[in-house]
Amino acid sequence: MKSKKQDLEFLFHPGSIALVGITSNHTSPLADIFLGPLLDFEFKGELYPVNPKGGEIRGLKVYPDIKEIPGQVDHVIASIPARLGPHLMHDCTAIGVKAVHFFTAGFSESDEEGGATLEAEITQIARTGGVRLIGPNCMGIYCPESRLSFRSEFPKDSGAVAYLCQSGGNSIHMVQMGAARGLRFSKVVSYGNAADINESDLLDYFIHDPDTKIIAIYIEGVKDGQRLVDTLAKAARVKPVVLLKGGVTEAGTRAVAGHTGSLAGTDTTWDAICRQLRLIRVHSLEEMVDLLVTLSFMPPPEGRNVAIVGAGGGASVLATDDCESNHLVVPQFTQEVRDQLWEFMPKAGNSVKNPVDSQAIIWAPHQFVNTVRTVSNWEKINLLIGLLVSTDIFPSWSEQSDMYKAIARTMLESSKASSKPMAIVVQPGIRPEMTRNAFHIQQEFVSAGFPVYHSVAQAANAISKFIEYCHH
Amino acid sequence: MKSKKQDLEFLFHPGSIALVGITSNHTSPLADIFLGPLLDFEFKGELYPVNPKGGEIRGLKVYPDIKEIPGQVDHVIASIPARLGPHLMHDCTAIGVKAVHFFTAGFSESDEEGGATLEAEITQIARTGGVRLIGPNCMGIYCPESRLSFRSEFPKDSGAVAYLCQSGGNSIHMVQMGAARGLRFSKVVSYGNAADINESDLLDYFIHDPDTKIIAIYIEGVKDGQRLVDTLAKAARVKPVVLLKGGVTEAGTRAVAGHTGSLAGTDTTWDAICRQLRLIRVHSLEEMVDLLVTLSFMPPPEGRNVAIVGAGGGASVLATDDCESNHLVVPQFTQEVRDQLWEFMPKAGNSVKNPVDSQAIIWAPHQFVNTVRTVSNWEKINLLIGLLVSTDIFPSWSEQSDMYKAIARTMLESSKASSKPMAIVVQPGIRPEMTRNAFHIQQEFVSAGFPVYHSVAQAANAISKFIEYCHH
Repeated sequence: MKSKKQDLEFLFHPGSIALVGITSNHTSPLADIFLGPLLDFEFKGELYPVNPKGGEIRGLKVYPDIKEIPGQVDHVIASIPARLGPHLMHDCTAIGVKAVHFFTAGFSESDEEGGATLEAEITQIARTGGVRLIGPNCMGIYCPESRLSFRSEFPKDSGAVAYLCQSGGNSIHMVQMGAARGLRFSKVVSYGNAADINESDLLDYFIHDPDTKIIAIYIEGVKDGQRLVDTLAKAARVKPVVLLKGGVTEAGTRAVAGHTGSLAGTDTTWDAICRQLRLIRVHSLEEMVDLLVTLSFMPPPEGRNVAIVGAGGGASVLATDDCESNHLVVPQFTQEVRDQLWEFMPKAGNSVKNPVDSQAIIWAPHQFVNTVRTVSNWEKINLLIGLLVSTDIFPSWSEQSDMYKAIARTMLESSKASSKPMAIVVQPGIRPEMTRNAFHIQQEFVSAGFPVYHSVAQAANAISKFIEYCHH
Repeated sequence: MKSKKQDLEFLFHPGSIALVGITSNHTSPLADIFLGPLLDFEFKGELYPVNPKGGEIRGLKVYPDIKEIPGQVDHVIASIPARLGPHLMHDCTAIGVKAVHFFTAGFSESDEEGGATLEAEITQIARTGGVRLIGPNCMGIYCPESRLSFRSEFPKDSGAVAYLCQSGGNSIHMVQMGAARGLRFSKVVSYGNAADINESDLLDYFIHDPDTKIIAIYIEGVKDGQRLVDTLAKAARVKPVVLLKGGVTEAGTRAVAGHTGSLAGTDTTWDAICRQLRLIRVHSLEEMVDLLVTLSFMPPPEGRNVAIVGAGGGASVLATDDCESNHLVVPQFTQEVRDQLWEFMPKAGNSVKNPVDSQAIIWAPHQFVNTVRTVSNWEKINLLIGLLVSTDIFPSWSEQSDMYKAIARTMLESSKASSKPMAIVVQPGIRPEMTRNAFHIQQEFVSAGFPVYHSVAQAANAISKFIEYCHH
């Protein structure tokens, strides 16, 4: 069953949503799981909670049955036991629902007897009745433009990244991590067992979606491998695609079967596919965020020569190793560049060969800007990495929050003026108070528009893959 | 100049310390840099601040000259400009100081003219006058037993890890990270340029030090390579040695020269040395902490078969890949084990093939304990990894802080009873409030005595290297 872009547009813009199986029992952790976020996002359409017990939840009337809802129901979020799925599906086809999202697990992924049969049954009813299914066993749709979200803390503003994620937990975790690093999303779909709408349908939609500039995919198993490969090829020709394949080891493949009930594929196969189709392959959600941040906020560097500017001799040594291990080059500055740096930097305790290891930028952060300007001017440098080591920087910088706000902006202007992209590494800190400082400093650089990373190794890896992608 | 253990014992137990070059100018970031920690640690000997201007600092009389100090001075911490070094050294030999620690940079590591000559000069005076030198260009000594510390926030209690670290920043960062994960230290020495006392002298001391059970080394450059290799061989025969070599790439080597003014050595050479001598080689400070935590808190597993217990299907899939990529094995549970788990776990939403992906442990954390007990009993399992995903666990668990305290303890008892070591992975969280929750949960598991890691990939890597070390 092949889908075209226009087929799925309706998924992201429902006029009304029925939440079936919602409970008003506030001791249940699932009580508000979907209703809460929709209310917090001020979803503009109608919301109809449904539970046989009736009553009221968060000021909304609870309908005892979906068929008693007075208005048109476009979209259903079902949190009912799997065995009640077929009955609900019949009701949905009867009242002309367009899409049903089953949050419920207990279908083909489950050890529960009859799970696979139930999944086949609801799929069959959906197809016969002209209703589309999302899931089962997933979190569904996040589309900030439509005020549609499955988590209250997700950003309310839209962005350029579409994320297609078979796992609910991994969709939440990635959006949370990405949001803190400045990523914003056009659409996120957690699609679970993919009984009806699958990864290829959604990918095909994202290829044509004008709001989506970058596509991220977390995929576990695939039912129609050839179609997915064809669709990935099409996608990679028009937009950058970052792919994380879960379940690439023998036991990982089995874990996939227990999670979304689908088949996997070997690590080598996926490596070959990614190389051939020019997909950017990553191996963890953290690395996915690193790549998306790079694709979103870093102009393509013209080469691999990096200048490292930071504080801490030992940190500089390890930063250099991390860059060169990831195929970036840390060329030694000429005497001319070094002399320019010595004009405003004391010689004791500082080293300016590249890396620039400067205590000065701890005690007088505007020297960070001066240093960045000076080294950007050297023609051999293609990009810069600014390294903020939590141990040293944060206690002094955090007392001067206005100062680092100004610094972040000045540095970004300077980076733009020199056309040398700059990455910022903010070590996340260890104890809560340090972590909080680090987070706030990170946010200043994120707000200014920098790609921000948590270690030089992660930055260098992502930048190196980005350069490879750009010059492929 | 070869040192034996008894030669250096005095370094760690000074009866009095003079802080030369201290400033009472509180706008200077260096004002209290060493005095503050010594006061906070309630150093039991005499403290003598020295500055030509005299006066008073934090209730202590400031002596204008070291020679005017009325009592015996055992140890000197010098924060004066390098060019004043030789003069100070003459004074120190005159009054019978035993050791001088130069915090000051601007010696052989520096671009400053005459730095190398000055370093040779102070070393010569030290040797002629029978004074030992620490550094220059370093943070010196942390020895909690003697209430000697260069940072106020370091733990005040002693432990089994000795850390020999050429870089000041890397010594601070590693101790901070390690402390939060339960590591405690016998002695830490940041030894900088190693003009007199060098890595081999200190390593030799740690070999014989009864308080030291594990040795960690961050090393950048070496002056006498053959002696170091001989000493490392000797050390590795009696205690686990974890080695991080900074400056292993071409540019990294240059960064070393700019930091501690010493020579490096290629990556391949160090790999061969580590393999041959049975040193545990790591490539980052984070990995060093992972290994030290494993060596400190994990009994040797009898094999590589791991059971993963956690929540989140996607997280379980990636956890399995991370384990198997690091040569751990995630064997599928027998039907018998699975049936035992189903006795207390609902089938929908849970998977128990290994990994155990259980929502139950989020909503009812005591089920975590039950699950751990059940899978520990299966003979094929050698160790367990408990996975706490910040997204899911923390909001619910953090409302029940007494409960997870009890859980951590019960789980440790259970792990001891079954003789199956257990690692705990606590994802550090993203936004400050989540990070704070994660940190507190982490601390409960650390306090109970677990090895705690921040990702399954890091845990699996460290455990795999540990098993290799144990069976080598």
